Amino acid sequence: MSEPILLNGRWEHAAEEKTFQSVNPTTGEPLPYEFPVSPLDIVEAMIQAGAQAAAELRDTSLEARAAFLKDFADRLEANREAIVSAAYTETALSASPRLQGELDRTVNQLRQAAWAVEDRSWVTATIDTANNIRSMFGPLGGPVVVFGPNNFPLAFNGASGGDFAAAIASGNPVIAKANPSHAHTTRLLAQAALESIQATGVPRATVQMLYRTAPENGLRLVSHPAIGATAFTGSKAGLNLKRAADAAGKPIYLELSSVNPVFILAGALDERLESIADALYASCTLGAGQFCTNPGLVFLLASDASERFIEQAGARFDSTEGGILLSEYGPESMAEAVQTWEAAGASRITGGARVPGERFRFQNTLYRVSAQTFMAYPSELQTEAFGAASLVIVADSEAELVQAIGSLEGNLTGSIYSHTGSVDDALYDAIEPALRGKVGRLLNDKMPTGVTVSPAMNHGGPFPSTGHPGFTAVGIPASLHRFAALYSYDNVRPHRLPPELQDRNPTGTMWRYIDRAWTQSDVG
Amino acid sequence: MSEPILLNGRWEHAAEEKTFQSVNPTTGEPLPYEFPVSPLDIVEAMIQAGAQAAAELRDTSLEARAAFLKDFADRLEANREAIVSAAYTETALSASPRLQGELDRTVNQLRQAAWAVEDRSWVTATIDTANNIRSMFGPLGGPVVVFGPNNFPLAFNGASGGDFAAAIASGNPVIAKANPSHAHTTRLLAQAALESIQATGVPRATVQMLYRTAPENGLRLVSHPAIGATAFTGSKAGLNLKRAADAAGKPIYLELSSVNPVFILAGALDERLESIADALYASCTLGAGQFCTNPGLVFLLASDASERFIEQAGARFDSTEGGILLSEYGPESMAEAVQTWEAAGASRITGGARVPGERFRFQNTLYRVSAQTFMAYPSELQTEAFGAASLVIVADSEAELVQAIGSLEGNLTGSIYSHTGSVDDALYDAIEPALRGKVGRLLNDKMPTGVTVSPAMNHGGPFPSTGHPGFTAVGIPASLHRFAALYSYDNVRPHRLPPELQDRNPTGTMWRYIDRAWTQSDVG
Repeated sequence: MSEPILLNGRWEHAAEEKTFQSVNPTTGEPLPYEFPVSPLDIVEAMIQAGAQAAAELRDTSLEARAAFLKDFADRLEANREAIVSAAYTETALSASPRLQGELDRTVNQLRQAAWAVEDRSWVTATIDTANNIRSMFGPLGGPVVVFGPNNFPLAFNGASGGDFAAAIASGNPVIAKANPSHAHTTRLLAQAALESIQATGVPRATVQMLYRTAPENGLRLVSHPAIGATAFTGSKAGLNLKRAADAAGKPIYLELSSVNPVFILAGALDERLESIADALYASCTLGAGQFCTNPGLVFLLASDASERFIEQAGARFDSTEGGILLSEYGPESMAEAVQTWEAAGASRITGGARVPGERFRFQNTLYRVSAQTFMAYPSELQTEAFGAASLVIVADSEAELVQAIGSLEGNLTGSIYSHTGSVDDALYDAIEPALRGKVGRLLNDKMPTGVTVSPAMNHGGPFPSTGHPGFTAVGIPASLHRFAALYSYDNVRPHRLPPELQDRNPTGTMWRYIDRAWTQSDVG
Repeated sequence: MSEPILLNGRWEHAAEEKTFQSVNPTTGEPLPYEFPVSPLDIVEAMIQAGAQAAAELRDTSLEARAAFLKDFADRLEANREAIVSAAYTETALSASPRLQGELDRTVNQLRQAAWAVEDRSWVTATIDTANNIRSMFGPLGGPVVVFGPNNFPLAFNGASGGDFAAAIASGNPVIAKANPSHAHTTRLLAQAALESIQATGVPRATVQMLYRTAPENGLRLVSHPAIGATAFTGSKAGLNLKRAADAAGKPIYLELSSVNPVFILAGALDERLESIADALYASCTLGAGQFCTNPGLVFLLASDASERFIEQAGARFDSTEGGILLSEYGPESMAEAVQTWEAAGASRITGGARVPGERFRFQNTLYRVSAQTFMAYPSELQTEAFGAASLVIVADSEAELVQAIGSLEGNLTGSIYSHTGSVDDALYDAIEPALRGKVGRLLNDKMPTGVTVSPAMNHGGPFPSTGHPGFTAVGIPASLHRFAALYSYDNVRPHRLPPELQDRNPTGTMWRYIDRAWTQSDVG
């Protein structure tokens, strides 16, 4: 019998169209569990239950909503070993430090989300006393559909990750679409969520989960009139979902591919060439390179030092065998990306092929190309190789380096390494204005992997790295605003206002924007 | 010779595909000016100039940006009579109080936008000192295209209105697409804007303006890689623009049709039937009913009092001849909407036809239908009649009234009139949860026309009233966030940070979110 889905508060052996298995990338063998591919009527049933839960959540106390998030965090910690072990089996990511750390991050996000619920400031309660108009952000009124990616089985999982935490914290139920590459892990996470639902008394369909459904059902799901919004993290396949959601006027937040340019200026190479080569190698090969913030492009100015840097970086890339990728499609997709680079004129420094005899491994890969060629083939040379691969772009002059930035697509991040003194400041000042608008997060002297859960984080950026440049997928409370609608109250009688908009500050500590000043005080 | 367009800081008699004239609705005669329909290469030139201006605005001081907005407001006041006169001639809206008041509103919006620039708090500067990550909202990096509607020749004009003010205040140049029904008015507004550009030294292409272009060029405009975003106010024709912009990953904000349900509960009728009938009549016929917040649906419970209310309202609607509509398409479109209502089972109380012998007038119109029929034909019976027309929906029971809310589409507003005591509170409590998520602004004891420029306003709502439920087109500073990207700075050296994110508060009064508290203090 295949595994059950989580439908309206129960594990159900519901109708299925076919089944699939996830695979252990370390052994290449399918795992013993059979997971259902759910038909449309199950998807519809899940949406209806989610819509009901959205209405019920309106009448559920903030205390219960926060308690759910905290209880769930506690249960993930209590089940740490089983969850990490399942995730390791399905992903081959290192159990420690990677998956242990990812579980810590997941738990941290859930607890920060609980804090945001209790703090309440995220709703941006705005009070105009002269006109007696008051507004705040509130839930969308329908479930949020979360598609998790293959590369973060816990911290971005549809049933436990950042989008999940933000959607619940802002008052919306979640329909989690498991990533099929770690279906069993998602089952364990959803089980913990169900126990937390039962323990804290939030609506039974606050969290639902299915493993797979046909692509056309996915389009129906994200465009259904009864849903609130969708969050998708993954490949450009998400653009199909975007088209369907956009046509239906349903908000959809995407985190798609990104090649994360890193600029290494001459003064920095003079000063600390080897340590930067270490940092590039470490960042690019972390998690077998399967990060949306992987440093996929490295910009250098032509010089002897840059040649030494390329040599040093190449040696490091060459020093280890490529890691195990998340699926057997990984090496195939890497090979295609590298072929695209080569066809556009890039040349190999190291790597570029599968590890011989291995279905799941691809060599650590470093290529190079001139900035002129990059500008001639910007689309091909920004093809994301989702793994441990970087393309070095060498510019003949500072002017050409700055000019090449004009050919960059929207990215999640951009990094600039410069001399610790002021040697590189003039070039920095030329690069920064061109780069700033192309990336969501600008870094100095740091590789882009490592996305801190900070209120000031932007894990987002201009299209095509995401679907909208104003929102972040990481960082609390900012990420909650993706799943919120703005509700204004015009001349509404005081006793009918939500507590957050009444004259008295409901917590005594909540921040509100009253008559154009932020305050924790009551009105008047 | 046809009128020039405003291209890159100059009035240009550029290439044109054909010309058109605007019409005086009072006389039905074309006005003497010929306006060009611009070809694609002109559109492209405008986008390139706008992109250049976007880059230049980055290096323009906030003082200059604010000075532009204030100088422009001053010039509109100085040219008040000419502008109001032009708008009256092109729209037949009353010069006073309507157009005089609209000019006041326009000037007020521009001055509030200037305040937002100087105040700087709108950027939501967020500082995480422990991780040294800092973020703020900033400009999009390309021009914002603003399509103004026909019904607000000043306050929502692409060259002077709320979207314009918000786009400039957030640091983006504007490409104004004039509404062809008031092209000459738009010419005068753009001339004042050009004078303000020259007087304050902001980039020459900070404001550009064209009158018309072929629909396919409009699709190119809103999806062009070099633009920042689009704001469109008008009919559902905007959905074509949305499709093109969405496919290109370009933000687009729409304000489309809305029927603005008004619920009048039994206790309110007992108490003040006549004054509510007065309010409905006044709100519905204001500006010949051509408001996006026009009260187009009125929900009543079946009773003798409701019948008296319908009779009283009908008598008021019948007491004046229908106003002059903005174009000769107005009466045609009204007739089509009313036919759609009739075909779905609505019956006439009064009006329903053109004023005999008048090309631009339609009778004040009131229809009625049962809630059962409304629920059977929700789409037909929510067809917007853009003019002085309302459809009364009579429910047989409180349960049916609440049930009917489930058939409502997303709207800008929803109003509830109830007894000044607690008589209606139980029914209010049943209606409010169902209605709240369907509307952007909820009102008590007030008609929806009259959209105060308040920080707590939401002139927005769920699809299809707009394209995203989280944004407002009116209200400063909130409306600025539509035209902003989130920029995070991770480990960026202090002297390279924007002033808003440096340790020292740049104004001493700007509000910043530092370590999860709002403050006007410096860091540390």
